[in-house]
Amino acid sequence: MNFDFLKVKNEDAIHVPAETIHAFIKSALQAVNVPEDHAQITADVLVEANLRGVDTHGIVNLLEYIPMIRSGDYTIPQNIRVLRESDSTALMTNGNGLGFVSAYYAMKLAIEKAGRTGTGQVAICDGRHIGMVAYYPMMALKEDMIGMAMTNGSRSVRPVLGARPRVGTNPIAFAAPANIERPFILDMATSTVSGRKIELAYQLGVPIPEGWAVDSEGSPLTNPPLERNENWSQNPLGNTVEQGGHKGYGLAVMIDILTGVLSGGGYGATFQFGRNMTWVMAIDISKYRPVKEFKEMMDSMIRELHATPPQKGAKRVLIAGDPEADIHEIRIKKGIPIHREQAGTLNRLAEELGISERIK
Amino acid sequence: MNFDFLKVKNEDAIHVPAETIHAFIKSALQAVNVPEDHAQITADVLVEANLRGVDTHGIVNLLEYIPMIRSGDYTIPQNIRVLRESDSTALMTNGNGLGFVSAYYAMKLAIEKAGRTGTGQVAICDGRHIGMVAYYPMMALKEDMIGMAMTNGSRSVRPVLGARPRVGTNPIAFAAPANIERPFILDMATSTVSGRKIELAYQLGVPIPEGWAVDSEGSPLTNPPLERNENWSQNPLGNTVEQGGHKGYGLAVMIDILTGVLSGGGYGATFQFGRNMTWVMAIDISKYRPVKEFKEMMDSMIRELHATPPQKGAKRVLIAGDPEADIHEIRIKKGIPIHREQAGTLNRLAEELGISERIK
Repeated sequence: MNFDFLKVKNEDAIHVPAETIHAFIKSALQAVNVPEDHAQITADVLVEANLRGVDTHGIVNLLEYIPMIRSGDYTIPQNIRVLRESDSTALMTNGNGLGFVSAYYAMKLAIEKAGRTGTGQVAICDGRHIGMVAYYPMMALKEDMIGMAMTNGSRSVRPVLGARPRVGTNPIAFAAPANIERPFILDMATSTVSGRKIELAYQLGVPIPEGWAVDSEGSPLTNPPLERNENWSQNPLGNTVEQGGHKGYGLAVMIDILTGVLSGGGYGATFQFGRNMTWVMAIDISKYRPVKEFKEMMDSMIRELHATPPQKGAKRVLIAGDPEADIHEIRIKKGIPIHREQAGTLNRLAEELGISERIK
Repeated sequence: MNFDFLKVKNEDAIHVPAETIHAFIKSALQAVNVPEDHAQITADVLVEANLRGVDTHGIVNLLEYIPMIRSGDYTIPQNIRVLRESDSTALMTNGNGLGFVSAYYAMKLAIEKAGRTGTGQVAICDGRHIGMVAYYPMMALKEDMIGMAMTNGSRSVRPVLGARPRVGTNPIAFAAPANIERPFILDMATSTVSGRKIELAYQLGVPIPEGWAVDSEGSPLTNPPLERNENWSQNPLGNTVEQGGHKGYGLAVMIDILTGVLSGGGYGATFQFGRNMTWVMAIDISKYRPVKEFKEMMDSMIRELHATPPQKGAKRVLIAGDPEADIHEIRIKKGIPIHREQAGTLNRLAEELGISERIK
C-alpha cells in the first residue's frame, strides 16, 4: 500500500523505459563480474519492483549492492547449491552472493517439486536481501500454481509489550492466479509498515504516523533516526495487545522459524542487517482441483470483494496487488519515474564502472 | 491473548476435572450416534481448548452441535474420504459431519505424507467448525514436525476501506517444537479479535474497545448486536490503511484461497455461518536439518524473546502459546472453571440424552 507523502514528486522525476533500466542493471552487474544469467535474474527482479511501484526495492538497490560486491562482502560469482533434499523439500545455500538469484532458483526448484509431488518447499540457509518478496510467488502464477515466500531480517521490530527490537519486519508474500481478473498478490511486512518506508520518510524529512514506531520505553515515536539501534523499534502489525499486536509479532516469529530456524541460518535477533533467510513454497493447483474451476472461483471472489460498498470517504475496495498492477500498467507505457538526483548518482556509477548505459 | 473483562468470574464458576469433561462430551456424542472413535477425537479437541483457556471453543460447543446432530443438519456417522491425492497433497470430504474429526484425519494424513516426502498438505472441501485451530498443528509437535492450519468462515469482517462484511475471521495456527522451552504455538484470527470474543462481550453485556468493529458507514461501533448481518462488520487486523488494515484483510483472503478456493468448498462471502473449509500442512523438520539442532535454536530464540525488556507498565514479554500453556498447567491441577449456569444447562442436556455423566 502506498502513502502519497512518501512518493517522488513528479517535477523531481525523469521517466525511464523499463528496458533502459534493465539494460543498465544487467551491464552494471556484469561489470563487477556477476555472470550473465545471474545479472539477468537480478535485473528482472529489480525492474519488476520498479514497474510495480515498489521503488524502494528497484534499481536504487544497485547503489547498495555494487559496493558490497566490490568490497568482497558478497562473493561473486556465487555458488548456489542444494545441501539437502527430499521429494518435496530442499535446503539451499546462496553461496554468499546476491539473494535475488538464490531465491529465484529456490522458487524454480519448488515449482519443479510441486509439479511432481503436489507441493514443493525450499529454504535458503545463508540468504541475503531478496528484494520485492512478491516476485518469487509470482513466478508460480505462470505455471498455474500458488506461490508463497517469506524472508526474515535483522532486529528492527519489538515484540508486543516489549521495548527493544527483537524480530525483523519479516515479510510474507503470496500469489494465486485468477482467470479474467488480475491475480491476487499479497506482499506485506508483518510490522505496521516495511522498514524501507521509515527510511524513506527519514530521507524526505517527514514525520511518520503514530503507531509505526516506539522509543525505548515503548512510547510512540514519530521522528525515528535512520540508524537501527536499541533505542527505538518498529511496531508489529496491530501494535497494542488490545488491537492485536501479538498477532503481527506472532507472524514475525512464525516467519523467523520457517526461514531462519528451519534452514539453520538463524533468527533475526542474532544477525546483522543484510542477512535474510528465505523460505518459498509452490502448490500445484491441479493436484487439488481443475485449474479452470479454481481460476473461475478466484474471479467470482475478486469481483465480490471489489463490489463491497466502501466506507464513508473511501473511493473503492481493492484486493492485494491492485495498486501495484495499476502502477504497472502506467509505467509499462510511460516509463519508470526516477528522481533526478538518483539518476545522477547512478550515471556516475556507470561512468566509474566503464559501462555505456545511462539512466535518461 | 485473553482479556480480563471477558473471563468467567471465579465466584460464578465450579472447577471440573478435565477427565470428567472428557467423559461427559464423549458420552453425550455417543448418545446421538457419533461413533466412539469420532466422539473420542471431538472430546480430545474440546477438552484441550478448555485446558488451554480457550473456553469459547470448549465443552460449551456441545450445546451447539448436539442440536445440529439431532436435527440432521450434521450427518452422523459421517463418511470422511480422500477425493483426490498426490504424493504430498490431498483433498478430503468431511461427509457433512463434525469438522473436528475430518480436520484431525487431515492432519494425520499430512503428517504421514510429510514423513515420506518432506511435507504434506490436505484441504477439506465441505468442512464444518474445527474448534481451536491450534489443536491440529499441535499434533505435528509429537512427530518432531512443524504444523500449520487455516480455516475460513462466513462473512463477518470488512475489507479495509469497505463497510460491509465480506471475509471471515479466517484464523491461522502454527506450531513448532522446542527442546527445553515450551513449543511456539500461534493461533490467531486475522481480524483484530475472534468473532467469539465479540459474542462473549455481548453475552456479558460489556462494550468492546474501539477498533474491533464498525457500522455500515465504517464508523467505530462499541456495542455490536449478537446477530451477524450487513449492518456491521468486524475489523481486519490493522484496521485502517495507515496502521496496516490491508494486511489483516490480505491474510484473510489468502486463507480464503488456500482453504476455500483451493478445496473448491467456497470462499466465506458465499456461505452460511457454520461452514468452514480447512487446509492443514505438516513439515518434517529432519528433511531440512537435524531435529536436535532445530530445537536448540528454538530454545535460544525463545529465551532471547522472553528476555526483551518490557515497555513501561508491562510485566514481561511472552511468545505465542505462553498464556495458554500457563493456564493449561493450572487447569490440569485445579480443574476447568465452568460457569454454574452453563453447568446446569449441560446437566439438563445429559438428563435429556439419558447419559449418567454430570458436570460437577
